[in-house]
Amino acid sequence: MLRVPYPDLYAALHKAMLVLGLQGDRAALCARLFAETTRDGVYTHGLNRFPRFAEMVRNRSIDITAEPTRTTGFGCIERWDGHRGPGNLNAYAAMQRTIKLAKENGMGAVALANTNHWMRGGSYGWLAADHGLFSFCWSNTLPNLPAWGTAVPTVGNNPLVIAIPRPQGNVVLDMAMSQFSYGTLAAYSKRNEPLPVPGGFDASGNLTTDAAAIEASQRALPIGYWKGSGLSLVLDMLAAMLSGGLAAHQLPPDPLREAGQSQIFIAIDPTRFSTGEELNHIVEEIITNLHGVRPLDPDRPLRYPGEHTLCLREENLRLGVPVEAEVWQQLNAM
Amino acid sequence: MLRVPYPDLYAALHKAMLVLGLQGDRAALCARLFAETTRDGVYTHGLNRFPRFAEMVRNRSIDITAEPTRTTGFGCIERWDGHRGPGNLNAYAAMQRTIKLAKENGMGAVALANTNHWMRGGSYGWLAADHGLFSFCWSNTLPNLPAWGTAVPTVGNNPLVIAIPRPQGNVVLDMAMSQFSYGTLAAYSKRNEPLPVPGGFDASGNLTTDAAAIEASQRALPIGYWKGSGLSLVLDMLAAMLSGGLAAHQLPPDPLREAGQSQIFIAIDPTRFSTGEELNHIVEEIITNLHGVRPLDPDRPLRYPGEHTLCLREENLRLGVPVEAEVWQQLNAM
Repeated sequence: MLRVPYPDLYAALHKAMLVLGLQGDRAALCARLFAETTRDGVYTHGLNRFPRFAEMVRNRSIDITAEPTRTTGFGCIERWDGHRGPGNLNAYAAMQRTIKLAKENGMGAVALANTNHWMRGGSYGWLAADHGLFSFCWSNTLPNLPAWGTAVPTVGNNPLVIAIPRPQGNVVLDMAMSQFSYGTLAAYSKRNEPLPVPGGFDASGNLTTDAAAIEASQRALPIGYWKGSGLSLVLDMLAAMLSGGLAAHQLPPDPLREAGQSQIFIAIDPTRFSTGEELNHIVEEIITNLHGVRPLDPDRPLRYPGEHTLCLREENLRLGVPVEAEVWQQLNAM
Repeated sequence: MLRVPYPDLYAALHKAMLVLGLQGDRAALCARLFAETTRDGVYTHGLNRFPRFAEMVRNRSIDITAEPTRTTGFGCIERWDGHRGPGNLNAYAAMQRTIKLAKENGMGAVALANTNHWMRGGSYGWLAADHGLFSFCWSNTLPNLPAWGTAVPTVGNNPLVIAIPRPQGNVVLDMAMSQFSYGTLAAYSKRNEPLPVPGGFDASGNLTTDAAAIEASQRALPIGYWKGSGLSLVLDMLAAMLSGGLAAHQLPPDPLREAGQSQIFIAIDPTRFSTGEELNHIVEEIITNLHGVRPLDPDRPLRYPGEHTLCLREENLRLGVPVEAEVWQQLNAM
């Protein structure tokens, strides 16, 4: 592992985007979203994801020139078509539009069909929170998670993002419906380390902390067993029905050709009801209470979602952003 | 266990509501919400919850005469005060108002402060779905669940409801943030039966399927460990900040005096974009796909959230609604 200065990471990604065919502001934004994701410590969805992104541009699953368009709308709620353009650019545009609708109407929503993998979902939660808004967003994915009661991948590990604005640091929950991503499972199995909690089933159908056994069986565990399975299903229904786009089971089952996702973006403007000071007082009381609770391990105080992101962001800006030597070389050779 | 005809259950509850001091339509609706919950097989939150409801009316935690009022509003989004009235009546009124806002604006939200336990959260999802709307709602609760990283109850097991309208039977997810409710843990420990999956920690801090050990330690498990813990926290922040009401840690820690909850209701009108036929086509494809997946146990086909509710509803209307003899006697003696 190397550490490279953030501006170098961004510059290398920007150059690569231009090579792929992205132009102007779009190349800059796409590079920034990848770079910021790695800077924030979400290594699975930043630079390490870029080779797959590039491959999907080359195999034409992603149309690098496509920009999202508004299909229809009614007041605070709109439906958009992503035309299979780059998923992070589509999602960013959708959340920007949602923010505008929420600022005008108190609340806004965009249902986006026919898009692509949005990389780090949390990016769009941070965006809305930086504008002082509450937000929810989620995406469906190809079926990569067995629903409760089957060994067959049936539902997506649909990421769900909920974000809350806070001047001292936004609160951003960014979670998939599986207990561990396949990226995390791969990291544990590579290190030959047991998972901290059971993350799926082995070939015999027993719950296990053996990441390699789960990779082999492809039976990752939904969070909360039947609960995460049900949550994933209803998020998929909402995404497909509201956007008019594809449901999980209609997406190509090959991760290198996974195109056509449906996504929902919702934002709420809390300043319609309360001053920033009043809102801040409430969230600070909740966080102060959380931080005051006695942890099991005195060295590991309780954290709110997003707190660790800010620590990693600071550290990576200070020391350089960690990159895998091989991926970094690949990027610079483009 | 007895089975009593549904009309008898409703009539006994209605009489009891009048005895408690509820009048007219409010007595009828409160009784119907309790009766329907038991009819639908959610035994923990229907008739079995009535004695606690009655006790909280008597100890004045619930003000039986209080009706919710609108505090402020902006277009599609409003803030209401529940004045500590009966939680199910407040929540029903809030979702009715949310439905109206969504029909007018495409989307609507009500943030309700100063209310009480809403009993079965799913009731309000069914209500919106019966009006052809998508809906989300959630409540905070007293801190009854240790956040990830502590043994101290810190967050609520905040129920989250997501509902999708479907002519052949609505899809309604109604789940708390703990893997099992304390009601379910009590049922397992009474039968001296192990939980199907680990549901919390024993006194030594080990994950266990021993329900009695979890009741003793009061360390129930959030769904997905750190994920459910984070989800519970952000739902609490949203509820308190948007309603201007109390957060989980500010609610009285005694379940018999738990008053002042904050709740959020959101509804979306999908018919702004698609005909009922188009929407129905999408949801049927998803459910047909789910039902077609090979189950682990051939006798237990995969189900969507709410599917079991419809089976139990039909069975209980046909055979009579199961009630515990002791609670039934108590009710009739009022």
